[in-house]
This record gives sequence, structure tokens and C-alpha cells, in this order.
Amino acid sequence: MAVYTEISDDELQAFVARYDIGRVVGCKGIAEGIENSNYLLQTTKGPHILTLYERRVNPDDLPFFLGLMEHLSRSGLQCPVPVPDRDGRSLQTLCGRPAAIISFLQGMWPRKIAPWHCGELGTAMAQMHVAGLSYDVRRDNALSIAGWQQLYARVGDAAEDVETGLHADLGRELKLLESAWPKLMPVAALPAGVIHADLFPDNVFFLDDACSGLIDFYFACTDFLAYDVAICLNAWCFEPNGDFNITKANRLLSSYQAVRPLLDAEKAALPILARGAAMRFLLTRLYDWVNTPPGAMVKPKDPREYLHKLNFHRGVRSIAAYGLA
Amino acid sequence: MAVYTEISDDELQAFVARYDIGRVVGCKGIAEGIENSNYLLQTTKGPHILTLYERRVNPDDLPFFLGLMEHLSRSGLQCPVPVPDRDGRSLQTLCGRPAAIISFLQGMWPRKIAPWHCGELGTAMAQMHVAGLSYDVRRDNALSIAGWQQLYARVGDAAEDVETGLHADLGRELKLLESAWPKLMPVAALPAGVIHADLFPDNVFFLDDACSGLIDFYFACTDFLAYDVAICLNAWCFEPNGDFNITKANRLLSSYQAVRPLLDAEKAALPILARGAAMRFLLTRLYDWVNTPPGAMVKPKDPREYLHKLNFHRGVRSIAAYGLA
Repeated sequence: MAVYTEISDDELQAFVARYDIGRVVGCKGIAEGIENSNYLLQTTKGPHILTLYERRVNPDDLPFFLGLMEHLSRSGLQCPVPVPDRDGRSLQTLCGRPAAIISFLQGMWPRKIAPWHCGELGTAMAQMHVAGLSYDVRRDNALSIAGWQQLYARVGDAAEDVETGLHADLGRELKLLESAWPKLMPVAALPAGVIHADLFPDNVFFLDDACSGLIDFYFACTDFLAYDVAICLNAWCFEPNGDFNITKANRLLSSYQAVRPLLDAEKAALPILARGAAMRFLLTRLYDWVNTPPGAMVKPKDPREYLHKLNFHRGVRSIAAYGLA
Repeated sequence: MAVYTEISDDELQAFVARYDIGRVVGCKGIAEGIENSNYLLQTTKGPHILTLYERRVNPDDLPFFLGLMEHLSRSGLQCPVPVPDRDGRSLQTLCGRPAAIISFLQGMWPRKIAPWHCGELGTAMAQMHVAGLSYDVRRDNALSIAGWQQLYARVGDAAEDVETGLHADLGRELKLLESAWPKLMPVAALPAGVIHADLFPDNVFFLDDACSGLIDFYFACTDFLAYDVAICLNAWCFEPNGDFNITKANRLLSSYQAVRPLLDAEKAALPILARGAAMRFLLTRLYDWVNTPPGAMVKPKDPREYLHKLNFHRGVRSIAAYGLA
């Protein structure tokens, strides 16, 4: 429900005239997503997505993101692709912002997660990881361990307003993560490649009984593939009441492994990667929580959800807890 | 950017299965509009609008609104129409709320108003007024003179925070409006019928160089037809810098009159109707202004814009000011 750039009629007409996508018959802002301004652009040839990249996306990263979507789609993954204009360019400028027209991906994201959704997710994520191995552009993960330290420092004592003792507790956890976190450079301790890094349910579309594709690659980066799996364990396998659903985790991991088997080292690292993944979302939510003025219409997500998940993984002694033998 | 009801996959599938509109391939919340939750529902047969009516709409009024759209469309006006399910019913329940699927109207609302837009608006509004005369359901205007008194009382002294002396000034203006306002009952002093009552630019769609239709009939009611014209003079004929654009007003009124000529009594009443129309939006904006918490993401509209418009009409001595001979 972010910033919405108002596009004037003339600007829109002139913009779309550069493309071979038919005549515009409608353009409506989409309420979902908070990073960019997204519009559903109806043309005489069907629906498209028009995205204006707002402040939170670094324009220098856009070639990485758009190139990745093209690469993954060419490799057979179902995902939106940038639509090139008649000169073959997909990255444009509109209303003074970087902009692109993206193909419309059919499907809806699931509001209520069933185990079969997790199975479909595991397959699609593994397919993405395999396809991404041949994408030879690199982008560092700004929200990995070094980024967490910065976020932690910026939240500071305000963490105490969420829970007494949280500031010190997270400090200890960060120290532990720093010593236990696998090395990515100069040689990756675990298989690394392009990860999505934000595969929450609202970024995974389904149609009937199957995954119809992945969207929103604007956090994608180079990191451990198993870290993406760990993010999904957190985002998909906890029930609304906080219980960890081992059936969902098993479906997620076994479907993933049917496409790309996890190495023993990845399995062994999964609990610590899951703690790190919980820390990453806990810290960004904490940051938003303490920086959102009271009475704001857009309620920030409760960071305690991720504190609870972090504590769950702190108690995990073996990957049997995730349904892996 | 209002309340957004989350529709679960199962609920949506079951709901759409009642209709003969094809298979759902997408459903995205629309960012515009603040009264209801609107979704762009893509099906294999094309786009539709799915509306969930939230608290601000009285469910008892829905048959009036939906029936009006059907009536106007049958009369040849371009506007969205409720889509009936296989049993012929268009008003439904979804997620515990009244809901309807509405046809998709092609076009976009103009961000920058040119005089020709006002001409197209005048024609469409007059066509709507003529078509509405044969709609024999009545709905009182809750935001006419009696409603203004209530709003004024509820805003109270908080008006002083917007401008010193505003409370007393509006009190005097309301007294004057009360004595000068034409009688609607038991016999209307001016031609009355169905008015749209909210024909702002975002409710009027254009495609290429023509109006493609009117949307959002959820303020429609029975009132003086010329009051609708007065609302449009305020909403379409002032420049962003506050100047009244007499060329736009002339185009609006002359196009209107080419379809439905205004009676002399309506022309004479136009300045007072325009003052009332300015008062109506000034009061609702004042109410929202003083009742929106600081720091809220959705900024309320500045009431001073309508205070300025009210003051303009207070100085009007003849309808020549609106470009009428």
C-alpha cells in the first residue's frame, strides 16, 4: 500500500506506445506490495503489470533483477518476465522513476497454507535454484549477517519496548550466529547461487492444485541455497497459533530434494540457517515496528512472531525436528 | 486504500463457481477507493470487478445502487453493471460482507483536466440525469442540508485548528444556506431525480478522446439535478492553484444543456447550489481532517481547498461567472 506515483494520461499513452502490447483500456494501482508502485495494465491484448520502482529499490540492481527473471523464464521456470519495447529495452523511465512492463502471471497466492502448497513450493524453489546456477551475475545479500548487525544497532534499546531483555538476548544470538554462520567468501562452505530471499506465500502463485509460478524477485541475491529453504521453513511451516507443522516441513523438504538433494552439510546447517532466517525477519520487523508512528493506517507486522520462530529453532537439536530422517 | 478483506482461495473459488464468467486466473486488490474493498478479478473470459461492501455502505441501500446501474446501462449510459449469478442474483455475501461482481468498464480517469474533459463530463452527466428520471426508486441524500448541520456540530470547535474564526463563519453560512436552499419536499422547487453526487474526476473514465463511462454510484441519491452540476463545477473547474477556469465551466454547462437544457430557475439557483456543494465537501473533509490521527499513512484531503471554493461562490453575483450568458 506504498507510495503511489500518479501517472498522467499523456505520460502513460506515450509510454505504452513504445511497446507492441496493444491499446491501453485500463490501468489500476494494485494494493499489494509495499516496495514499488504496481499497476494492472489492461490492454486490448490482455493484462500486464506496470511497475514503477520507488526509493527502496536501488536502480543499480534492476538489471540483475530483470535479467534474472528473463534467465529463469528461459530455463523453464514459471515467473513473470520483463516485456521489451520495440527497441528491445525492458528497463525504462516513467514519471522520473525506473519502470518496466512485466508479463501477467496467472494465479493467486494462498491465504491458508495446506501441506500440498508446501510440496509445490519445494519443487518450484529447487527448480529456481537449479536454473539460477547458470545465471552468472552476482548480487550480495545486504540482509545477511553483516546487515543484521547494522539493523540491530539501529533498533537499539527500542527493542525493550517489544519485550524486556530483548536487546541483550538478540545481542547474544547475533554473536552466536556470527561464529556459527557458514563462510560464503572466498569459498562458499555450502552450495551457493541465486536465492529468492523473500519466498513468502504472497510471492508464490497457485492455480487449481498446482503452483503457477513465483513472483517478486526484488530481494534476490547470491547466497546459500539452503538459506532460501530456511526462510521458507519459517514463512510456510508455522501455524497461525505458533505451532511448527512438521508435516508441512517434510513436504517442503522432500519435494525440494526430489529436484535438488540437499548435501549432508546443508542438512546439518539447516537449524543455524533457520535461526539466521528468523533473525533477519525479526530485525526488519523490529525496525519497522519501532519506526512506525502510532495511528498509522498500515500496521507493521508484529516482530514477536519471528522471535517465537527464532526461539523454536534455538531448541532444535537435530533436523528430525524438520521432518527429515 | 481502505480496509482490505482477505478472501481465502476456497471462498473465492466457491463464490465464482456460482457465475458463468469463466475460471479465475487472478484476483488483485485495487489501491483506489476508500469506501469498499475492490478487486480486479481476472477470469478466462476477461477482467471483472469484485466489490466487498465495507462498513461505510449501508447494506439496505445496495439494491438501490445495483438497480440504478442496471437501469442506467439499459438506458444506454456507459457504466459498470452488476453481473448476475446463474440464479439471476447479483447481490451476494462473501467473507460475511455484502458483495457483487461488477462488469469491467474500460477507460482511465484523467489526472490532468482539460476543457474537453469537462465537455464530455457535461454530456455524460446530463445523459445520466435523463436516464435516471425513469428509475422509480428513491433514496434520500444523507449529505444534504440536514446532514451538514450534524457534521458541523460533530466537527465543533476543532474547525478553529484549521483556520481561526472558521467555526463561526461556517455557522453563518449554514444559516444562510438553510434559508436560501430550494425545497425538495413535498414538491421539488427545481427538477429532481437521481444524482451521482460524487462525480469527481476519479469516477469518470476516458478512452482516447471520449468519456467511456461513469463509475462508483455509491453516493447516488434523489436530489436536485442541478446540485450534481454544482458539485462538478467545484470538482472539475478549479485549477490546482485555486483559480476558477471559466472556459471549463462553460464547456461543462453548454455540453450539459445540449442534452438537458437547464431551466431559468436552475440557472438562478446555481450559485447557491455551488455554495452548498462546497459546504458539503468542506464539512466531510473537515470531519476527516480533525479525526485522522497524526502520522497516519493515508493523508486526509485538505479542507481549505473547499473553503476557498466556498468563498469563490460567495462572491458570485450572476451565472455569468460560470460562463453562462
